[in-house]
This record gives sequence, structure tokens and C-alpha cells, in this order.
Amino acid sequence: MNPLTLAVDVQGGDYGPTVVMQGLLEAVGRYDKPLAVYLCGNQDEIASAFEVLRHVPQKQNVRFAVEHCPQRISPRDVPARAWKTKAQSSIVRCVALQREGKADVSLSAGDTRFLMGASIFILGRMEGVARPALAAFLPTANQKPALLLDVGANLNCRAEQLAAFGRMGYAYAQANFGLEKPTVALLNIGMEPSKGPRNIREADRLLSQTLPGYIGFVEGGGVLSGSADVIVCDGFSGNIMLKLCESFYGLAMSLLKQKPELARHLKDSISILNPENYGAVPLLGIKGVVFKAHGSSTATVIANAFLTAVHTAERSVLNVRANYARKEP
Amino acid sequence: MNPLTLAVDVQGGDYGPTVVMQGLLEAVGRYDKPLAVYLCGNQDEIASAFEVLRHVPQKQNVRFAVEHCPQRISPRDVPARAWKTKAQSSIVRCVALQREGKADVSLSAGDTRFLMGASIFILGRMEGVARPALAAFLPTANQKPALLLDVGANLNCRAEQLAAFGRMGYAYAQANFGLEKPTVALLNIGMEPSKGPRNIREADRLLSQTLPGYIGFVEGGGVLSGSADVIVCDGFSGNIMLKLCESFYGLAMSLLKQKPELARHLKDSISILNPENYGAVPLLGIKGVVFKAHGSSTATVIANAFLTAVHTAERSVLNVRANYARKEP
Repeated sequence: MNPLTLAVDVQGGDYGPTVVMQGLLEAVGRYDKPLAVYLCGNQDEIASAFEVLRHVPQKQNVRFAVEHCPQRISPRDVPARAWKTKAQSSIVRCVALQREGKADVSLSAGDTRFLMGASIFILGRMEGVARPALAAFLPTANQKPALLLDVGANLNCRAEQLAAFGRMGYAYAQANFGLEKPTVALLNIGMEPSKGPRNIREADRLLSQTLPGYIGFVEGGGVLSGSADVIVCDGFSGNIMLKLCESFYGLAMSLLKQKPELARHLKDSISILNPENYGAVPLLGIKGVVFKAHGSSTATVIANAFLTAVHTAERSVLNVRANYARKEP
Repeated sequence: MNPLTLAVDVQGGDYGPTVVMQGLLEAVGRYDKPLAVYLCGNQDEIASAFEVLRHVPQKQNVRFAVEHCPQRISPRDVPARAWKTKAQSSIVRCVALQREGKADVSLSAGDTRFLMGASIFILGRMEGVARPALAAFLPTANQKPALLLDVGANLNCRAEQLAAFGRMGYAYAQANFGLEKPTVALLNIGMEPSKGPRNIREADRLLSQTLPGYIGFVEGGGVLSGSADVIVCDGFSGNIMLKLCESFYGLAMSLLKQKPELARHLKDSISILNPENYGAVPLLGIKGVVFKAHGSSTATVIANAFLTAVHTAERSVLNVRANYARKEP
């Protein structure tokens, strides 16, 4: 059987190809099964990154293939059209390699809108999904991750969209959290059915009727307590909550600046709160496994992002491979 | 000069008059200046609470007066009308005592909608304020609190409302944080002017033109870092963020359950994150000082809420007294 194959956008992210490549080498150093990796980006920059990183020990279990991408996406490009007009950009090529059956999963730290656009138009939406979503993993008090969606792809959501997010999250949690019947909740400002905005109350009604794992509303305080495996909200709320959660770890550490001893002990105990541990979040509602890493990802975050993508792909790759004919790099 | 006078809704909150009264006695035990307190509630229940709490040492600096309130607000009452139909309820009497010049500040752990309704219709709105807001204090990495508003009184907000929240927060921070020119930011999902929903982009334009302390957008990750003294958002986002922040402290403590030694040390260091430390949040845009405590407040939280209200009133009481003729209890 062919090794698991990832397409990585090495041009994505704020720090350039060398940092992304450093993260990849770090990641494969921590992974023992065979892997193949397409490095999508400018071939000269990839070559110099390899030169800079020549001190990093290479592993036998991984094969790298350079996918030269001469084009660059600019913020002036249109997200819904860049998959065509910038077909030779690194972000679009990653996704296209999946469509061509050459890669099992894509990872990019580039602009979410372009990654989403390429995914929708090249890979296509899953049946019944009008708007794909970006999902994130949150730490919880009972040590299991919770899936939060949407976290920024859809700012305002109609009730039907929220209900679809619930179904997408349920399916993802079933496949990836090893749960037969994951619990799904809608984020709201109260627990009673009469509380909150109309679209959320209507989504509550839709989900009650259609989703077996649906358990009703959850408030902001219930998100991290692990009261649901999947938490559904609009992309504005999800985005601010995700970034707020991510900042909590930094706040705790900064409050402990004066006590380095304590900070060191604490670091292990609350490392579940460290956003760097996941590194990447999946796009849901897409026919394929696409992961988005933070633009500001350091090499360590890229490494964790890569491994998150690998572990997810390990679980779902058979499905994905069944969808597309697959060739070797 | 007359002592500072508070009107407290002893029927508000989930745990009944005894817990509220216990909190009050705890608070006055920690306060040394003269105080007068109106206990608004059922006189029999107040009498039995005093009986239950007879072991708590009474202080000489505080005078209690019972304001018997025979009516009860029910969830079926209409928030905009209860100030009239339930004029003899504890929540409405608190606010009315301020209007009558008998009290300087109100505190209630009752239903926000009724407290807001009574405040709007009895005390009135400040000039230029269409919709009063509920503000909350958040801990920040630089050890100063940040004011977050709205946190639940207004779910959807037009640009003009968000801009008014900015002005209200600015005025509050000037009066209470000892800052000449507090910084005000709008919560958004990105920093560029083109990012986010239309109402937020429009509010950004309005505030840029009118508010001296306005510094632009802040993302979810910047809220706890102390990047602004006042953070403006709609009541849905604010409510979920507030409750999420409040849950952080509990999550950190639960993650440290296995390490009681570490938890004890940590407790002091991150006590800034403990939501119980403030206990109550002010209503802004109202002619008067009105504080709302959590419905689920324990006695300790009520004590902190009471002292937060007292300290705020100390700073602003001269203004408030100037607004209303004032009589002694």
C-alpha cells in the first residue's frame, strides 16, 4: 500500500518557507510510519530552505517531492476565482494534488479565504452542505477535545447553516474522536429555548428534530467544561472565542512570570490549554481532508499542525482514497 | 455628611435572602467607613435571615433598614412594564429608592431584563443613549481590568449603538479607572478595516471620527492582553466571552486537581482571573449607579459585588447625589 501522502503549502504563513520546512522536518522526526510529502512552493526557495536546514537529520521513512508553484496569490485576488486564475500558486496546487488523487490531505498556513475557495471549487462540497466551515479543537476540563465550528469562515449564519454545521461536526467527531454518538450543542447566551437570537432558536428546533446527538444550548461557560463534544456557532463568535481561548494560556504564563519555578510545573499540567498543541484546524463540509494552520505559526506549531493532519488522515484516508483515484508522487 | 447608602435586592439570585444577607454581612465586615443599607425584600424572610445569621458579628459602622416588598416578579411579567405593575417588588424598589434620593446605588442578583427595565424607566437614560448596556470587568495580563460591553443586554447592535457603547465605556473608565484618556477598541475578527461584519466596520468609522481614545479593532486574542481599557461588542459576543473567561479559572483549577500543592500556590498568582473577585457588573447609560450580580452568586460573590458597588459609588456618588435630592433612611 502507498504511504500516506500530504500536500503542504510551504509558501503559506507569515514566516516563509524555511520555517514551514523546519516544522515539517521536526514533525517527521517524531513520526515513524512511512510518509510522502509534496512540498508546494517556489523550487528555488525550497532548495535554499533545505540548504539552511541541512543540519536537521533526515529520516528514511519520508519521501519529499517538490511541486514547483511559480504563481503567488495576492490579497487583491478573488477567493472564489483564484483556484482558476492562480492555479499554479502553492495554496491551490496543494488542494489540486488531492483532486488529482496524488495526495490524501492538504495543509496550509495561508489565507483562509483562498484555501476555502480552492477547496470548495476543486474538491467540492459534501452532499447537503451549502457553506463549508472551519472547525477548531478546544481543550476541555475532562481532558477530551471539543470541536468548535464555525471559527471564521461564515460570519453571519442562517438557522439552516447552523444546523448543517451541527451535522458536519457530528460526522467529524464520530470519525475522529472515536465516539459512537457524539454530543452536539448550540452556543447561546442562556439555556432556555426562549433565550437568544432568532436564528439560534430556529437552529435549535431543526437540530432537535434531526440530529441524534443534539443536546440543546451551551453557554460560554460550558464550552471548556466538556459539556458537549461538538459546539456550533457562527464564525464571528467562534473566531473570537477561539482566539480568546488561545490567549488564556499566554495570560496564565505571563501572570506567573515572577515565579518561574511555578510556571515550569504548571506548564505540564495545563499544557492542554496550549494552542500550539493542535496547530491546525480542519475544513469541514469538503470532499477531502484539508487543514488550515495559523498564519503566525512557528516551526513547532507547523510540526504539530502536520501531525494533527497526519493523524486525522490516518483515520479517514480510506474513505478519501475511495473517493479519488490515487497516483504516487 | 450622610453615609453612602446602598439599596440591595435581597430576594434576587438563585439562593435566596439568607445567602444575600450573609454576603452583605461578610462585606460590611471588610469595610470600615460608615454605610447605610436598604434591605429590599420580604420582611419576614429578612427577619429569619437575620436570625439564621445571628452568629455573624455586627458592625457599628453600618445601619440596616428593611424596605418591605410584598410583590414578586415572575418570568411572565414584561420587563418594560414591571417597574409599574410590580412597583412593590424588591428589584423595582431598589431602583426606586435611588430615584427618591434615598439610596446612592442599587445592587441586584435578579433577572437582568427586569433590572434594566426598572433602571431605564425609573432612573432614565443618559443623554444620547438609546440602549443602555451591561459592562463587565475582565482581568488582563498587565494587571489592570478591562471593561467589556455589552455583555448581554443587547443581542444585535447597529453601528450607532456600538459607537454609543464606546462613548459610555470611555466615560466610565475615565471616572473609575483613574485614566485621563482610556483606550477603546472594537472587537472584531481581524485588524484590517475591511475585516468583519458591516455594522462593526461602520462603528469603526464612527468612533474614529468622534472618540479621542479610540484605537481601532481588537481580536479575541487581544482582550486579555490588556491592549485596550474598554472593549466594545454586541451583547451576544460579550456574554459568551465573559462566561468563557469566567470558566478559565475553573478549568485551570480542575486541571490542577491532582496537584493540590501547585493549585494552592497558583491560586494567589492567577487570582486576577477569578470571576468572584468582582462579583458584579455595572449598567451603563443609566442616570445612576446600578450593579448586577450573577444569579448564581454565593455569599462570597455577593460580598465582593457589594464592595465593587460601594467602591464605584464612592467615586461617583457626588455626581449622583447632585442629580437627585437625597433623604436619609
